[in-house]
Amino acid sequence: MTKSIGVIGGGQLARMMIAPAQVMGISIKVLAESEDSPASLAATQVGDYKDVATVRAFASTVDVITFDHEHVPLDVLETLEAEGYEFQPSSKALRFAQNKLDMRSALTELGVPCPKWAKVQSSEELDEFINSSGSVAILKTPTGGYDGKGVRVVRSSADALDWLAKREPLLVEEKVDFVRELAQLSARNKSGSWSSWTLVETIQKDGVCAEVHSPATSSNGELAAQIAKTIAEGLNVTGVLAVELFETADGRLLVNELAMRPHNSGHFSIEGSKTSQFEQHLRAALDMPLGDTAATKPFAVMLNVLGQNDTNTFGLVDRMVDGASIHVYGKSARVGRKMGHITALSDESLEDARQIALKVWEGLQA
Amino acid sequence: MTKSIGVIGGGQLARMMIAPAQVMGISIKVLAESEDSPASLAATQVGDYKDVATVRAFASTVDVITFDHEHVPLDVLETLEAEGYEFQPSSKALRFAQNKLDMRSALTELGVPCPKWAKVQSSEELDEFINSSGSVAILKTPTGGYDGKGVRVVRSSADALDWLAKREPLLVEEKVDFVRELAQLSARNKSGSWSSWTLVETIQKDGVCAEVHSPATSSNGELAAQIAKTIAEGLNVTGVLAVELFETADGRLLVNELAMRPHNSGHFSIEGSKTSQFEQHLRAALDMPLGDTAATKPFAVMLNVLGQNDTNTFGLVDRMVDGASIHVYGKSARVGRKMGHITALSDESLEDARQIALKVWEGLQA
Repeated sequence: MTKSIGVIGGGQLARMMIAPAQVMGISIKVLAESEDSPASLAATQVGDYKDVATVRAFASTVDVITFDHEHVPLDVLETLEAEGYEFQPSSKALRFAQNKLDMRSALTELGVPCPKWAKVQSSEELDEFINSSGSVAILKTPTGGYDGKGVRVVRSSADALDWLAKREPLLVEEKVDFVRELAQLSARNKSGSWSSWTLVETIQKDGVCAEVHSPATSSNGELAAQIAKTIAEGLNVTGVLAVELFETADGRLLVNELAMRPHNSGHFSIEGSKTSQFEQHLRAALDMPLGDTAATKPFAVMLNVLGQNDTNTFGLVDRMVDGASIHVYGKSARVGRKMGHITALSDESLEDARQIALKVWEGLQA
Repeated sequence: MTKSIGVIGGGQLARMMIAPAQVMGISIKVLAESEDSPASLAATQVGDYKDVATVRAFASTVDVITFDHEHVPLDVLETLEAEGYEFQPSSKALRFAQNKLDMRSALTELGVPCPKWAKVQSSEELDEFINSSGSVAILKTPTGGYDGKGVRVVRSSADALDWLAKREPLLVEEKVDFVRELAQLSARNKSGSWSSWTLVETIQKDGVCAEVHSPATSSNGELAAQIAKTIAEGLNVTGVLAVELFETADGRLLVNELAMRPHNSGHFSIEGSKTSQFEQHLRAALDMPLGDTAATKPFAVMLNVLGQNDTNTFGLVDRMVDGASIHVYGKSARVGRKMGHITALSDESLEDARQIALKVWEGLQA
């Protein structure tokens, strides 16, 4: 019996699920936002994922529904779950990826180390938190943020008058003095099997992931995996779970963000791991046995290819240059947009892998 | 500029071109025979590839057209080439893969070693050849044969009265006393760059490929590559060229068959080579630089998964078992049908890879 999976969202994450679905003989369908989405090849419907009737029509064509992003409204998911449609992850798990205040509460309850945080709604509450936290803090809108959006460094409530004016709860967190940012990727299937990849280091530039180094130069691999497992089990996550972490100078790990879907920090796994995050996400959502996440080479570096201007789409490039792989997402060009990525593997060192990837990147710009 | 490629035929070869097309940002479209073909995900048209209007309509939607099989009639290709549509390989090359008499003439002219052969049309001609070749020969219909069809062992013209009755030319060949069958896979792009994979051994069962071992236990690797290059250049082949070879007890190589498309003997390259035959075929057809064909592991074994009955579709299987990969083609089940394949890699030996693959195969039947 061929199983079918539906993916809500037609971005590059859905696009990269297509190849493993084909290999495994899984029928894949995509509900895309537009006709020319990166995952258009598998798009069977174009429509608004916020509209319950649209999502219902799509859900009725597949066995299980999963996600390219976490923006489907919770009430849409809850309504359709009550009608018997199966979402993986379910609304019960996904709410913690959608709402950062709910996430902080749940993680604190699970004993997972987080930055100091508070829910604030007034200038007074915010200023009090800032004053008790070294005169600076990170303010976040609980929902809707990504790639640095919905996040602001604040030194006084005056820096957030526009957000406070909405009189909705905000999440404020201490500004963590971290030495590096890490990501722990893992996956959990419906039956509860759980499997992690190696801990990776993520290098952000202007709030957007620029590079991922696998493995991270950190001795916290076991602790990170333990944190990820606690979260996956505690929140009943199914599919891929990405846990973004801060590592402090004194060696502590603090959870920054969660994503319950394949994640930019895991793109290296397509070449760098025996089972990619995209295959594993499908396996987990369909409750298949999880694949082996062992590394194929000791070192992997991924570089995001961001749009440099509004014309270069980086289409039809020479993918295989000195052992690096270029992935092209098929998007129209825009400055700063994630247009694709480059992964390079090495037996020697992270620096060796990085140099290979950089050389390819330079070739792309020529 | 995103390039688009059209594939005529919706079988597993077209299906396996989808993943590399997505990675490279190439738009891929398929003209399929039926709605539920293995490559249905990329099918933009369902129709008869023998009908020139159907093929023209499809060709007009893409930059370059290539093939999942070699059955598109030559006059259809020639008509559309004259109208300016670009086929890779072109009709000038493809005719040698379509017609075995033309192939034998051309290879003989190129000095490529072939079994002793003749064109015969009458009982007398056939019996004369058989008598001069040790009382047994291989008789082939020049066109339309595959997987053992259109091929017959004959000891007298009485064994082929039905074919002779059609009064059309037949190809008769000596029955080669071979010690093993080999396949040399290579690819050539429009600009003339050529690149080969390692020589592999193919193990046939009932006229159908059952196993492929890479590398072949043969010392004829260089000679095989040289033969393949002579053919690719001599016949102006673009895309993947598979040269099936006999190896004789005295170490000679004789060309058995040609295919100008990805080939069953090259499926191991998806995991076993840095560039798979499917990616390379797209690169060659679109005149991109060819990828690196170095092996990812020293040994690879591929087993075809043939239908055992009319119900087991081998869908949704546990792909990653002890390092082996299962590929499912998404076909309805039929006895003897190629339903998928298993590839196992090993650092140790061919036998080690084979045992891993066999273990997975046994698991599939459980």
